Amino acid sequence: MSKYPELIDKARAAKVASRELALLKTERKNAVLQRLAELLLKNAPAIIEANTVDVNAARKSGMKEPLVDRLSLDDKKIKGMADGLKMMADLNDPVGGGNKFWVRPNGLQIMQTRVPFGVIAIIYESRPNVTVDTFGLALKSGNSILLRGSRSAINSNKELVRLIKQALGQSGVSEDSAALVEAMEREVVDELLTLTECIDLVIPRGSQGLIDFVVDNTSIPVIETGVGNCHIFVDESADLQTAVDIIINAKCQRPGVCNAIESLLVHRSLEGEFLTRVVGELQKNGVEVRGDETVQNAADGVKAATADDWGAEYLDLIIAVKTVASVDAAIEHINRYSSKHTESILSNDYENIRKFTSAIDSAAVLVNASTRFTDGGEFGFGAEMGISTQKLHVRGPIGLEELTTTKYVIYGAGQIR
Amino acid sequence: MSKYPELIDKARAAKVASRELALLKTERKNAVLQRLAELLLKNAPAIIEANTVDVNAARKSGMKEPLVDRLSLDDKKIKGMADGLKMMADLNDPVGGGNKFWVRPNGLQIMQTRVPFGVIAIIYESRPNVTVDTFGLALKSGNSILLRGSRSAINSNKELVRLIKQALGQSGVSEDSAALVEAMEREVVDELLTLTECIDLVIPRGSQGLIDFVVDNTSIPVIETGVGNCHIFVDESADLQTAVDIIINAKCQRPGVCNAIESLLVHRSLEGEFLTRVVGELQKNGVEVRGDETVQNAADGVKAATADDWGAEYLDLIIAVKTVASVDAAIEHINRYSSKHTESILSNDYENIRKFTSAIDSAAVLVNASTRFTDGGEFGFGAEMGISTQKLHVRGPIGLEELTTTKYVIYGAGQIR
Repeated sequence: MSKYPELIDKARAAKVASRELALLKTERKNAVLQRLAELLLKNAPAIIEANTVDVNAARKSGMKEPLVDRLSLDDKKIKGMADGLKMMADLNDPVGGGNKFWVRPNGLQIMQTRVPFGVIAIIYESRPNVTVDTFGLALKSGNSILLRGSRSAINSNKELVRLIKQALGQSGVSEDSAALVEAMEREVVDELLTLTECIDLVIPRGSQGLIDFVVDNTSIPVIETGVGNCHIFVDESADLQTAVDIIINAKCQRPGVCNAIESLLVHRSLEGEFLTRVVGELQKNGVEVRGDETVQNAADGVKAATADDWGAEYLDLIIAVKTVASVDAAIEHINRYSSKHTESILSNDYENIRKFTSAIDSAAVLVNASTRFTDGGEFGFGAEMGISTQKLHVRGPIGLEELTTTKYVIYGAGQIR
Repeated sequence: MSKYPELIDKARAAKVASRELALLKTERKNAVLQRLAELLLKNAPAIIEANTVDVNAARKSGMKEPLVDRLSLDDKKIKGMADGLKMMADLNDPVGGGNKFWVRPNGLQIMQTRVPFGVIAIIYESRPNVTVDTFGLALKSGNSILLRGSRSAINSNKELVRLIKQALGQSGVSEDSAALVEAMEREVVDELLTLTECIDLVIPRGSQGLIDFVVDNTSIPVIETGVGNCHIFVDESADLQTAVDIIINAKCQRPGVCNAIESLLVHRSLEGEFLTRVVGELQKNGVEVRGDETVQNAADGVKAATADDWGAEYLDLIIAVKTVASVDAAIEHINRYSSKHTESILSNDYENIRKFTSAIDSAAVLVNASTRFTDGGEFGFGAEMGISTQKLHVRGPIGLEELTTTKYVIYGAGQIR
């Protein structure tokens, strides 16, 4: 027996709406996105009013300021959401197309087309702009969406979903295409994760705890979005000025994101001047450096790195630095400790670059560039649902194409076996 | 604490071996496949001897003859396995290639390459030829394989895996690339399903009970292989002789397979002569027909179909037949009851064909052809790991490409954000 009949109703209605969405013409989908962008701008005061209730409650409950900042909406952030929707309207429709078509000797014409999943459920944490972004991506890829945001953003999300439903209705598309799960008990997520008949895909966005909980508690297909313990390896032959620039960028430009580096591996031959310089630059940028013995000897103020440091995702101005004997030792270390998100080699040696890009088992492997480029926007996808660190279905940024599955359509003329 | 340290050892060793396999040249992989084909033929007597022990034990325990037939190996079946391996050697190597390459305005060159998963675990039932087929597919796609066959085939599987390891060793490839899980307790599967660090993908092949068990008890990514409640819909405008031929082929040519039809939907306008004729032909071919009232009136000997029949996968000479008012009603029925494997429309009406192929939510949708064509061999894949009925990663026949994942390799020249 369901404890949350409202949840079941919303999921079933989303499933019914998904059949219509799957066949919806591109211009109709774009009309919804454009309409929603207008509604967001027009209703900015109402959105901010609802958001203020959430922000005040969050501050009262002692939420830390960086998190309050993520929760807060202002005119600029609302314009950002509206601009994002307009950009999605400009992107290619991923539905219907496909790369594969062939004809069999018996005359059967086999084509593989892209089709929506059906209903996507998103379980996410405080940022209310995720509500609008993920709705836009789901709609453009022909999927209904069930939104389960956090308790701290409930008033903001209610207002945003009210506008989403208005945009759908005003464009003649079923309002059931998007629904907010409003019950805030933990058990409602447990129940959502059992709705295998209605929900085709679950995407958890948030902490590792949330992701693990979802993976462990559902048999609905999941796309895990990414924890990033990313590495840079500086090879013997690297251009050293470029190396410093890339390391500082990858660590400091935005330390709280998944594609920032957490560990730095340096070829042993660079233990002298270069190591001293790079540690100094990191410290100058406010980074706490933890290192092996060689690193501790290279500069002042370096703490000893423990085994835990090699596997840590600090999401903060902290870095673990280790010297390694060779590219092979770097590869071994990374394949052992990495979360398989993004790694970069800085080198001018063709053979070592080849070794590194072949042997590293991560979603993205860069050569002579910052790890910060593993990102839907930087890839040119326009928008992303997160970065997948799993191997099934999608690895790396999740764009519109990755929110579709495939279907074979086969044209015959009476063929039998 | 592990109750099966041998399992952990094999899984860890398979993981280590998978790093080598991922980089193995195509000709080395092909050499293993060719060598194994030779060894199977040369050791046919020893294989049959081991298999006879299994077959005798199975008969003694009362196994039904069709299942004993699936368990039994003879010279012809062994030659079939060897031929399959030689064919895999001729197929394109799926590793390394990819379809996507682009350059960003900042000069970053982004390529998406195909890479192996790592370690694939297969949990399967009695047929020992699955041991060889799945090893071949895993090896060619650069993956290690953990094989967990059934107790009834244990002696056959031990002999086959002995030869597999010989072929690997003689070709200079790590023998840990393939391992048979020999402990036969149910708990060993429970433990295998927890080895998220070592196993990258689990493929259950067998009954729905097995598949459900695996899906419900692991957080390792799973590819579900397919239960098939497949449908044919005969539209008003179908060529009726072709329709009869296709229906008989789809139901009777091999009723025990997943791409055989279980339900037939007939447009109401054909309730007279055609319905009588098709039911008669089915009955002449030994098929038990269960139908709605119209069908029961159209011919003698038709049992009443119950609600259970519409969702049933008989895998037997039984069919459920229903008349429908329109292509829309057919689509609604199929999307409600189908297992989303394969459906076929028999029609000459362009608009109805378009509706059907667009709206049906199944892995394969055929037009004027038998459902029996949803098959790796018939698709031209050469070999298949099964038919996926899930939407994540692969839908339809699982070939070599589908046993790989992707990795982005990105070439830069000092780019930072």
